[in-house]
Amino acid sequence: MLDPRHAILFEPVPIGPKILPNRFYQVPHASGFGSSQPRTQAAFRGIKAEGGWGGVCVEYSPVSADADEEPHVAAYIRDDRDVAALRYTAEAIHAHGALAGLELYHGGNSSKNVSSRHPRMAPSQSAAAISWGSTAREMTTDDIRRVQSDFVAGARRARDAGFDIVYVYGAHGYLLTQFLSTWTNRRTDGYGGGLAGRARFALEALEQVREAIGDDCAVATRICVDGRRGVKGVRIEDMLEFVRMADPLVDLFDVTVGSWPEDSGTSRYYPEGHQLTWTRRVREATRKPIVGVGRYTNPDQMAALIRSGDFDLIGAARPAIADPFLPRKIAEGRLGDIRECTGANVCILKEEDFRHIGCIQNPTAGEEFRRGWHPERFDQTSDPDRTVLIVGAGPAGMEAAMVLGKRGFAAVHLVEAEDEIGGRLRWTRRLPTLGDWGRIVDWRRTQLDQLPSVEIITGRTLSDRDVLDYGASIVIVATGSRWSDDGSQPGRLRAIDNASGSLTPERVMTGERPRGQRVAVYDCDGYFVAPGIAELLAAEGYDVHLVTSHPVVSPMSDGTLEGPMLRQHLHDSGVVMHPGITVLARSADGITGETEYGDPWTLEVEDLVLVTHQVPVDELHRSLTQDADALRTAGVDAVHLIGDAQSPRWISEAVFDGHRLARELDLPDPSFPAPVLRDQPV
Amino acid sequence: MLDPRHAILFEPVPIGPKILPNRFYQVPHASGFGSSQPRTQAAFRGIKAEGGWGGVCVEYSPVSADADEEPHVAAYIRDDRDVAALRYTAEAIHAHGALAGLELYHGGNSSKNVSSRHPRMAPSQSAAAISWGSTAREMTTDDIRRVQSDFVAGARRARDAGFDIVYVYGAHGYLLTQFLSTWTNRRTDGYGGGLAGRARFALEALEQVREAIGDDCAVATRICVDGRRGVKGVRIEDMLEFVRMADPLVDLFDVTVGSWPEDSGTSRYYPEGHQLTWTRRVREATRKPIVGVGRYTNPDQMAALIRSGDFDLIGAARPAIADPFLPRKIAEGRLGDIRECTGANVCILKEEDFRHIGCIQNPTAGEEFRRGWHPERFDQTSDPDRTVLIVGAGPAGMEAAMVLGKRGFAAVHLVEAEDEIGGRLRWTRRLPTLGDWGRIVDWRRTQLDQLPSVEIITGRTLSDRDVLDYGASIVIVATGSRWSDDGSQPGRLRAIDNASGSLTPERVMTGERPRGQRVAVYDCDGYFVAPGIAELLAAEGYDVHLVTSHPVVSPMSDGTLEGPMLRQHLHDSGVVMHPGITVLARSADGITGETEYGDPWTLEVEDLVLVTHQVPVDELHRSLTQDADALRTAGVDAVHLIGDAQSPRWISEAVFDGHRLARELDLPDPSFPAPVLRDQPV
Repeated sequence: MLDPRHAILFEPVPIGPKILPNRFYQVPHASGFGSSQPRTQAAFRGIKAEGGWGGVCVEYSPVSADADEEPHVAAYIRDDRDVAALRYTAEAIHAHGALAGLELYHGGNSSKNVSSRHPRMAPSQSAAAISWGSTAREMTTDDIRRVQSDFVAGARRARDAGFDIVYVYGAHGYLLTQFLSTWTNRRTDGYGGGLAGRARFALEALEQVREAIGDDCAVATRICVDGRRGVKGVRIEDMLEFVRMADPLVDLFDVTVGSWPEDSGTSRYYPEGHQLTWTRRVREATRKPIVGVGRYTNPDQMAALIRSGDFDLIGAARPAIADPFLPRKIAEGRLGDIRECTGANVCILKEEDFRHIGCIQNPTAGEEFRRGWHPERFDQTSDPDRTVLIVGAGPAGMEAAMVLGKRGFAAVHLVEAEDEIGGRLRWTRRLPTLGDWGRIVDWRRTQLDQLPSVEIITGRTLSDRDVLDYGASIVIVATGSRWSDDGSQPGRLRAIDNASGSLTPERVMTGERPRGQRVAVYDCDGYFVAPGIAELLAAEGYDVHLVTSHPVVSPMSDGTLEGPMLRQHLHDSGVVMHPGITVLARSADGITGETEYGDPWTLEVEDLVLVTHQVPVDELHRSLTQDADALRTAGVDAVHLIGDAQSPRWISEAVFDGHRLARELDLPDPSFPAPVLRDQPV
Repeated sequence: MLDPRHAILFEPVPIGPKILPNRFYQVPHASGFGSSQPRTQAAFRGIKAEGGWGGVCVEYSPVSADADEEPHVAAYIRDDRDVAALRYTAEAIHAHGALAGLELYHGGNSSKNVSSRHPRMAPSQSAAAISWGSTAREMTTDDIRRVQSDFVAGARRARDAGFDIVYVYGAHGYLLTQFLSTWTNRRTDGYGGGLAGRARFALEALEQVREAIGDDCAVATRICVDGRRGVKGVRIEDMLEFVRMADPLVDLFDVTVGSWPEDSGTSRYYPEGHQLTWTRRVREATRKPIVGVGRYTNPDQMAALIRSGDFDLIGAARPAIADPFLPRKIAEGRLGDIRECTGANVCILKEEDFRHIGCIQNPTAGEEFRRGWHPERFDQTSDPDRTVLIVGAGPAGMEAAMVLGKRGFAAVHLVEAEDEIGGRLRWTRRLPTLGDWGRIVDWRRTQLDQLPSVEIITGRTLSDRDVLDYGASIVIVATGSRWSDDGSQPGRLRAIDNASGSLTPERVMTGERPRGQRVAVYDCDGYFVAPGIAELLAAEGYDVHLVTSHPVVSPMSDGTLEGPMLRQHLHDSGVVMHPGITVLARSADGITGETEYGDPWTLEVEDLVLVTHQVPVDELHRSLTQDADALRTAGVDAVHLIGDAQSPRWISEAVFDGHRLARELDLPDPSFPAPVLRDQPV
């Protein structure tokens, strides 16, 4: 039941000719689906409307031929085919009473145009910081009129596709901001000079869009306010003045701060609501509805924010990916069921680099269409009376147990050798800055506690004999992985000489410490583990050297927008970084290896932590499956292997793997993932 | 007319149940089109068949759900829709009498599976060198049988789609090679151990594919032979033994060497035919037809190679992109018309990173469907008597003049201020290792010399008055760009203090030399220019420091597969590299700046070469277009701006830009590229 303190979140909010049914608003964000995977897009967004988000937007929609974003995936709305494609999504959102938004966009100097081969253009001639050897040409007044009319044409198509909210997108340093900035706009005509001139492009575009579709749709704009340095040199005072000028033309202001890594800051480096210092200032300039983000998942915090008057709508991208049903859970007073965003930005890595969004917390994100998965609904098993034994309560095992419980299995035993559940997350969450990742365990613990059919048994190690004697008809082995300590490293035939038995992340996290003061952490993994161990040891006073075979430290963190901050953090912690080094041997004095150029390299250290690669802990599975007779005799019908015990991957994939097996357990061969539906353009 | 010395190249060659009409064979290579852009793929490959390639293949075709290559584009052939999509291509190839090939593939441990989320698998459990934190699981015998049957299913679909040649693809370190290697195959069952066991997976797959489609199609395999270290540890002796074992099952052996950067080595670091030492050894093991590559463009060399008996077919990927009509030009004795591949690997960068292939030499590559461009045919202008003046004979100007000449314009004047044509290529081709890029100029010079309607005038600088007085009705300004020397740098508001007037690449290449012995080359461009200047100066004895704002030296070169070699080359030349540095000021003692962590950084040098960004040389265009009356009075109907003078980009894009304008000059507004056709899946 809705807590009256949260009732304010469910007030309807008029925006222009439309009414948002409540204050929950999924701001535009990319998914990898664009308009080329229309059913996937529709299912992904429709679920959010079903879960209670009153406004649901798709990703950016380039309006002009020279705003080509390929190979990135965008919600292009260039012609009738795109209109038909995006109509699926608008209808899926409407089906649950929410409003649908589309974000019209031109990148200007940030446009890629690498596939289309159009020259890039900008308010003034300017070289791009992106490394494609390209200087954008200055827009002519014909260009200005053309792009404005492209915004209008895009807006008309968005309306025809059924969208209720149409953005003229200005944030994140794109074309509108480029016009506003004195740095990128050095024009001497009526579109440059003072703020009125620099604002003219955006104001005219807004006016024309409003004139074309303002009776039918709400007109929104996305802006960036930043009090430190602004974006592209637009100071907050100028942006507030722009808001005042745009106010009569705009029905909704969508507010961001800083560049993308900051706007979508991860929990490692940005607390929830870190943007508020700047974003709340927009209220000084307008009484129109304002949406702001802050990775909020706590309804008390949300309600307080609305009461403060700073914002009118609770914007969310990542919290709505992690839990599409967040609003409905608040409405029903089921606060403990909210699956809170960890702020790990696996979503961003997946949509940017893999072109298919996913989530470390919500394994159904992006799987709504192709696998038919609903985040809150589970097919009930037709054969509930089989006993399922899950060995190992890491991310995969916890998730499998929870899904089986929700699917109606009457007896699910989750047996864990350690004294607490969580698997590798038990120690991962204790690495510096990674505390919020603990939400992956905490939420599952809460869910499991609500499922009477799931029994959690900790502190019990099962041998193959124990498993056979357990009385289960289905056994799921989820025994996880360990970090290799034998000195072998990916991509190299020979192991590191004399490195066998060196420290590993787990051993450090269970209390073991390096001998001596100077220690090397050797990273072939390239993500968060080695930097975490290095930072931890540095904080304890060790002289830490982070040596990595990768050309940069933690390349994966660049995919999560964390790279520069992570490296800065290490640097500030006194960790000395040695990228591009392959370690070949450990000696009494330290380690030796070679540089990327094949030159010999040495480092004097007293101890070594190996973060080379993970090895499945699959002995139990091997032992069980090699004796079919014993299984038959014991009444075990099936033995499955999931998560890191099968193939060590990211935590998101271990969760996914457990989820998938549990969903598909009644299929003839659940060990191999069922075929997925293929989407296709309209 | 065919030179009798080259007649051997046009002999038909039987392969299994098929007959290749000649010895020209376009080996499988990626395009960015896969099966998702069926008409684009068909047009791209069909042109090659039209141009005389007797065998034409599409790119790799993953056979299994756990060989998912997303986000890379592959010629998936998973179902009837894919069959229908790829049939377009087979038919386009057949229309010109050539044979169509498809390359069935499983990546094993190299599969991505990031979009599909399947766990990766391999002959034995193994960590991947790719940085996705992933250890592949060991394949079960069920997996082995499943993948083999996937190869068979793929082969049947390939046949049904109309393909004549079906590959079981084993090169480049993929699954078949992983089975062959003792390094990656540590199995103790019948699929490991001695070579016979390690070869069994591939031999069974070949046998099954042959059984299924061998009466209808030729069965090919692609292998890698490398005498230095092998690929994945497979020595050449073992590979030759494998060829002997596979011989009865295979109709065509397609031979590569080394890893991809070596197999597709650029002209900077690998001479033509560098693979031959190893690839010719395959003849020891089989009498079946062998195809080998070597970036060959010279028919004498090709004929000698066939006569030697080492190869039976002249394989080509890049030379067929640069000139789809290479075979036909040889057949017609038009050797001077062959547009020779430069070996710049812009094709690879474009298909890998931009998902749309292109070429630095052939601006029509990849544009056959969406723009309707044919590499050898040009729409004749309906109004040939307009005089066209092109100012500037760089890549854009040369290309525009050539295309206008071929389109039947009666008077095209190409006026160049310098004493020779070529624009920035005049000096680019003189940078160390970049000689083959001169082919861009040389081929166009040859073509222009054959066009009586094109007049080339060098050593003449035209003022705006000169242009008005010239008597042309159409003026095309192609005045190129220059490197900025004012110390401004992309992405930064403030210029480098006191750097104005520093050396630039052009000044170095026209003979100016640094003052003093120690010199810094500062690179914000990130491609070949700064490394080239650094290497040149180092070779002359300067102490050269290559300082770059990018996190690695020349990140673009990683896209062309040149990065590691380029950096090794610089290192071996004694150039000291300083990545991740932003230069902020020049002083009497040298330069100062900051590291990526914001720490102060200084370097003592006596001079500085700025390779920050290019500035359009567009003064002539500005001056002409600001006085419409003067243009009218002078009888100038149109003034166009192309190439670097509009927007400095890569050379490939300048060539494209000149080509596009010339193709579209008769449209109502040729300054803005005409809309392109959108392809769509079947």
